[in-house]
Amino acid sequence: MSLASFDRDTLVSRIRSLRLVAFDFDGVFTDNSVYVFQDGREAVRCSRADGIGLRKLEQAGIEPIIVSTETNPVVVARSEKLKIFCRHGCENKLAVLDELLAERGVGFHETGFVGNDINDLACLEKVGMPMVVRDAHPDVLDIAVYRTDLPGGHGAVREICDLIARVREAHR
Amino acid sequence: MSLASFDRDTLVSRIRSLRLVAFDFDGVFTDNSVYVFQDGREAVRCSRADGIGLRKLEQAGIEPIIVSTETNPVVVARSEKLKIFCRHGCENKLAVLDELLAERGVGFHETGFVGNDINDLACLEKVGMPMVVRDAHPDVLDIAVYRTDLPGGHGAVREICDLIARVREAHR
Amino acid sequence: MSLASFDRDTLVSRIRSLRLVAFDFDGVFTDNSVYVFQDGREAVRCSRADGIGLRKLEQAGIEPIIVSTETNPVVVARSEKLKIFCRHGCENKLAVLDELLAERGVGFHETGFVGNDINDLACLEKVGMPMVVRDAHPDVLDIAVYRTDLPGGHGAVREICDLIARVREAHR
Amino acid sequence: MSLASFDRDTLVSRIRSLRLVAFDFDGVFTDNSVYVFQDGREAVRCSRADGIGLRKLEQAGIEPIIVSTETNPVVVARSEKLKIFCRHGCENKLAVLDELLAERGVGFHETGFVGNDINDLACLEKVGMPMVVRDAHPDVLDIAVYRTDLPGGHGAVREICDLIARVREAHR
Repeated sequence: MSLASFDRDTLVSRIRSLRLVAFDFDGVFTDNSVYVFQDGREAVRCSRADGIGLRKLEQAGIEPIIVSTETNPVVVARSEKLKIFCRHGCENKLAVLDELLAERGVGFHETGFVGNDINDLACLEKVGMPMVVRDAHPDVLDIAVYRTDLPGGHGAVREICDLIARVREAHR
Repeated sequence: MSLASFDRDTLVSRIRSLRLVAFDFDGVFTDNSVYVFQDGREAVRCSRADGIGLRKLEQAGIEPIIVSTETNPVVVARSEKLKIFCRHGCENKLAVLDELLAERGVGFHETGFVGNDINDLACLEKVGMPMVVRDAHPDVLDIAVYRTDLPGGHGAVREICDLIARVREAHR
Repeated sequence: MSLASFDRDTLVSRIRSLRLVAFDFDGVFTDNSVYVFQDGREAVRCSRADGIGLRKLEQAGIEPIIVSTETNPVVVARSEKLKIFCRHGCENKLAVLDELLAERGVGFHETGFVGNDINDLACLEKVGMPMVVRDAHPDVLDIAVYRTDLPGGHGAVREICDLIARVREAHR
Repeated sequence: MSLASFDRDTLVSRIRSLRLVAFDFDGVFTDNSVYVFQDGREAVRCSRADGIGLRKLEQAGIEPIIVSTETNPVVVARSEKLKIFCRHGCENKLAVLDELLAERGVGFHETGFVGNDINDLACLEKVGMPMVVRDAHPDVLDIAVYRTDLPGGHGAVREICDLIARVREAHR
């Protein structure tokens, strides 16, 4: 979704306030699919484009973190590869986000959240910059100030990082 | 497929009668693909969206179950993760469904079935609410009272659960 | 591709003569992708729809076989699951096909071949009923008397089996 | 992208000068996805179409090589299967390419490079024939003299090899 589809000034203002962006994992870093093996182990499909984006975010002084409902070693594996903080197995994502922000001294108004389904609603409602991926569930689309052009797992994370880095660069 | 494409009153009436929904596995919970490894083991691709939908179904007082032709540990693995009952290796799905309904004291008219291929025909013909996924085989399309907008493995199960939960909520 | 796009009479006549259909594996039973693991092992993506089609072919008195260039255990694994004969590691597919037909006393004019790339050209040129998948390489499209509507690995095999079974049923 | 979309004479002239084509791996040989397993191991999705193309390139007297940023055994596994030289774990792709060209006595003007993201920019700017895949990041599109019709991992490598072989054949 081009910047123009939203209130550009609002978006720029929210991006300028950002100190942290929390990403849901399944459906955001992945295409919301899960590969199930005979022994119950799982695998997920991520995008190689995301790593470069996350480094841009950090260079812009913004910490990217992952907050995931699933208790799953693949989330840990991916976040370690991407060298970003992650907390998985979050029954209550908002409570976890609240705690993580408090530890860092970051306010909700300085926080972005990227989600794709109704278990992200509480976080999306609370943060300064709620974002959803192109193929998010219909029930979370309306709350977002930004919806990506690219679907989850197909460059949505990179698109958000590129957008934020571009705005921060232009408004230093 | 929007509710409007079907006889809305019929659909609402059938949904109000539901006590159980039986899902085929391959092509419904998955995109009908199978990943084949060198040692013959298999994996399948499912959607993370389905879990939330199945919980909604249960909250509406409807039991979701899986009835699959394939004798395959991946079906067991997935159903355990989703915490729903499954029976796999069903040569004759209708006989198995008949037995499972009898055990539960549920009638065929109170049952939904979601399928995608001709080995689902016997079940689809018998139940009160026959449903197929968007990308079902042409030979089973005509029998369905509901065809999903989303393809199998890409949110079809969630779409059905959302629809049923919405109708039940509206007609309590 | 609907039957109408081809010379219908020619197609029906060729289908009536069939006693065997040889399928290439990669790009026909699969989407021509290969999943590569860190230890060099491979996996491929097939369609669950194919099994039902192959049984129809056999019921119509036609033997389905796989002839693959790749020397790869996944071909063996898949053909065993599908319960059809396979020969993999075929440097020269035509020589192998020639030998297999001779063993069975089947003529090239009674044989169909389904391919997707230029290493299938020699076989496609020799058989009575050359077929290609929707997404075959441009250099093999012209030689086919039938091109599937569905891409390889996404129901192309099933589509061919359904077509042949339908014609055989109608012209018994 | 058809040849006609570019300056045809320029393209033909550059192809006639080629002695080596260096390919990025992720996003070029793959669809830029990575499959992440619970133990952190990874797999990638490649195309079976590429092998035939690489053999054509070699027959035209052009060496194909892979130069990848990722330190990853899957790159080695795939290049071994494809029987082409690869160097992975390249922090600085341009420095590595410079070294590999020097070893071979090949000039940058005799070199093609196929990339998909901003970490390919330095190489794309330096070589005689910079190329990108259909679904490359927007920030690298402008520098290419050729952009493939097919996306990375879905035949982009084959398309480039076919194009080069065709031009070389026509202008011997």
